[in-house]
Amino acid sequence: MNIPRTSFPRVVIIGGGFAGVALAKKLSKQEVQVVLLDKHNYHTFQPLLYQVSTGGLEPDSIAYPIRKILKDFPNFYFRLASVEEINTDQNKVITNIGDLKFDYLVVASGSKTNFFGNSEIEKYSMAMKTIPQSLNLRSLILENFEEALLTSDLNERNALMNFVIVGGGPTGVELAGALAEIKKGILPKDYPDLDTRLAQIHIVQSGDCILKGMSEKASQKAEDFLEKLGVNIWKNVRVTNYDGKTVTTDTDLTFETATVVWAAGVKGATIKGLDSTDFVTRGNRILVNEYNQIKNFQHIFAIGDIACMVTEAHPFGFPMMAQPAIQQGKQLGDNLLRIIEEKPLKPFVYKDKGAMATIGRNKAVVDLKNVKFQGVFAWYVWMFVHLFFLIGFRNRMVVFVNWVYNYIRFDREARLIIRPFKRN
Amino acid sequence: MNIPRTSFPRVVIIGGGFAGVALAKKLSKQEVQVVLLDKHNYHTFQPLLYQVSTGGLEPDSIAYPIRKILKDFPNFYFRLASVEEINTDQNKVITNIGDLKFDYLVVASGSKTNFFGNSEIEKYSMAMKTIPQSLNLRSLILENFEEALLTSDLNERNALMNFVIVGGGPTGVELAGALAEIKKGILPKDYPDLDTRLAQIHIVQSGDCILKGMSEKASQKAEDFLEKLGVNIWKNVRVTNYDGKTVTTDTDLTFETATVVWAAGVKGATIKGLDSTDFVTRGNRILVNEYNQIKNFQHIFAIGDIACMVTEAHPFGFPMMAQPAIQQGKQLGDNLLRIIEEKPLKPFVYKDKGAMATIGRNKAVVDLKNVKFQGVFAWYVWMFVHLFFLIGFRNRMVVFVNWVYNYIRFDREARLIIRPFKRN
Repeated sequence: MNIPRTSFPRVVIIGGGFAGVALAKKLSKQEVQVVLLDKHNYHTFQPLLYQVSTGGLEPDSIAYPIRKILKDFPNFYFRLASVEEINTDQNKVITNIGDLKFDYLVVASGSKTNFFGNSEIEKYSMAMKTIPQSLNLRSLILENFEEALLTSDLNERNALMNFVIVGGGPTGVELAGALAEIKKGILPKDYPDLDTRLAQIHIVQSGDCILKGMSEKASQKAEDFLEKLGVNIWKNVRVTNYDGKTVTTDTDLTFETATVVWAAGVKGATIKGLDSTDFVTRGNRILVNEYNQIKNFQHIFAIGDIACMVTEAHPFGFPMMAQPAIQQGKQLGDNLLRIIEEKPLKPFVYKDKGAMATIGRNKAVVDLKNVKFQGVFAWYVWMFVHLFFLIGFRNRMVVFVNWVYNYIRFDREARLIIRPFKRN
Repeated sequence: MNIPRTSFPRVVIIGGGFAGVALAKKLSKQEVQVVLLDKHNYHTFQPLLYQVSTGGLEPDSIAYPIRKILKDFPNFYFRLASVEEINTDQNKVITNIGDLKFDYLVVASGSKTNFFGNSEIEKYSMAMKTIPQSLNLRSLILENFEEALLTSDLNERNALMNFVIVGGGPTGVELAGALAEIKKGILPKDYPDLDTRLAQIHIVQSGDCILKGMSEKASQKAEDFLEKLGVNIWKNVRVTNYDGKTVTTDTDLTFETATVVWAAGVKGATIKGLDSTDFVTRGNRILVNEYNQIKNFQHIFAIGDIACMVTEAHPFGFPMMAQPAIQQGKQLGDNLLRIIEEKPLKPFVYKDKGAMATIGRNKAVVDLKNVKFQGVFAWYVWMFVHLFFLIGFRNRMVVFVNWVYNYIRFDREARLIIRPFKRN
């Protein structure tokens, strides 16, 4: 890869998610050369992907060009590349567009959907970790409704209008809520000849509560909200397979459905050459010390979802969310400058800012450190926080316009099948 | 197709463009059943497609769900379908989702890119008539820049940064202007290691002026604007081929380029069964009388781009633009009601509202009936008119936010490669 060598040490960052971008920003205008590699040319604001899937937001308003984030930083290089391997002996990253030497390497490759080895589920169900995946889901939902109009077979129509979401975490809950609002607000207007009652939304949850990481109160209230919206929640049920038609579970329960959204878990996106069992741990994450260093290395780090930093409060690592990623990115930026200046490193301390999830219009749950609340005010807090963390003034404005419009009009206008999914 | 038969006569409209939508709106709440068929579930505001291709607008803000346009109209049916054939003997439309009988049929299938039978050009060049095509072009432009960074072969880099637009009509001119602004405003910031001067934008025009349908003054001024922006205009040059690498012309001129945008012409999108040489004329359009009736038929009509209505002022039919389409749609709506009420039909009279094109920031040309002007004021008029004709309040707001942002910040933030084009 033709990136000029300068007298500055070269930091290669793999991944332009929350962690990688926070780190790169921290290093901007410092005496280091930063090379950021990502297979997309944009940063994705993942917490709002479910709104893309359900037509509430356009994809472009939750994406931000990576080159623009760091356009005023003279020592910053971005390359659109897929990393294929890391050669730790030669301090080299091997990509589809050539090799790249590094002085410091930061793996911020994030996480990917975990199908727990079930290839049928992987083949037939929908994931929602990237913008193209979210757009595929948007197309599929709308194509299902169009198809439901055409069939005279009631079972088939049922399956087309049945939505099974596997996993009751924030993604599953937020998507279920949005689908329930589509059922209530859009379906009767857009498809007056379809019987809305056929549209069923199911959350299948292997554990005994939804929003497991949050407080009991939040979990209970989210369940109430979802039930009010008509979502069916199946707890203590584990999905065992989906063959494109029928979802089977470890109980007698089965679902006939054309749409399964797999939100049951993620795992670290490890890279060949840095996947030793020495440090790859539970959930395919890379064990790091309190400086985000990977075992056996002084100059190779992992941050964000891919990193598993074990602390007393978090024996299995921090939750795979934006906050730990952003905080680790910033902290590692400071620490890299300390290494270069030969100063001692500072250990990472996670500031838990809480968690939140939205279920629908005026319905959200918020757990902060000292206060937990649910309902309308929580919903406003949720929106404010998401607007605040969204990158880019234009994106904020466009998202804001959409939200105000959707709120006033009970609408979601981006119900567009731009690229059909089924015909692909 | 399972659409219930009622006592109302059934009007089947093929195509949800300007003409089809204007007609359907006119017939809403009348005593007719309307079935609109389109292969997309949205209406596309084609005049702004070039802004999608150049990252200035998100695709979703120029698309509008067809079902929503007519959601309060009880006798309106939409079906997502590709029409395969029309059987005029049996008054039947044959589609990929089944057959449909009609009492009245309106063909509003619009136009498609005319490659004049050159299959190599069709294979290798980019068209810009639909949202997916515009997104492909957006991806290609950005992928070219990313690739240009990687190559050490100067010829290849040159080709990747060279853009050839064939056709100097509004589409070609507007796209060229937008690309010139990217060259000036975005390229130096996003790709500091690329030599911006290599980025060349060419318009190749077979005739002796650009914007042929407009006034001489507009054409001349547009040319001045483009030249100021650094666009190369080649007049009286006809492109003869493009093999994916080299554009050849009927002169000595050739271009080495990775990107050819074909904006050299459109032709009517005729449908099998309604393609008799009795009435299919110049440019593959269907000859209609002053009531938009197709020859030999009382109950089959064509409106918009596909229709060729010959008048003294327009011996080759009206220009293939939004205005004639909208006006014909409205007029035919009235006439269909007259037919049903057994009243005499009213002939269509085209109200020429003029034409306009934008070249870039503060640069547009406007020809109205009695006044022609160019420059900043024309640019404001252009924006106002386009906002006004855009369907949907949310779309208008989002486009407005983007335009204000782009204007103030000299920016285009939707420079996202959501679906890579080259890897497909």
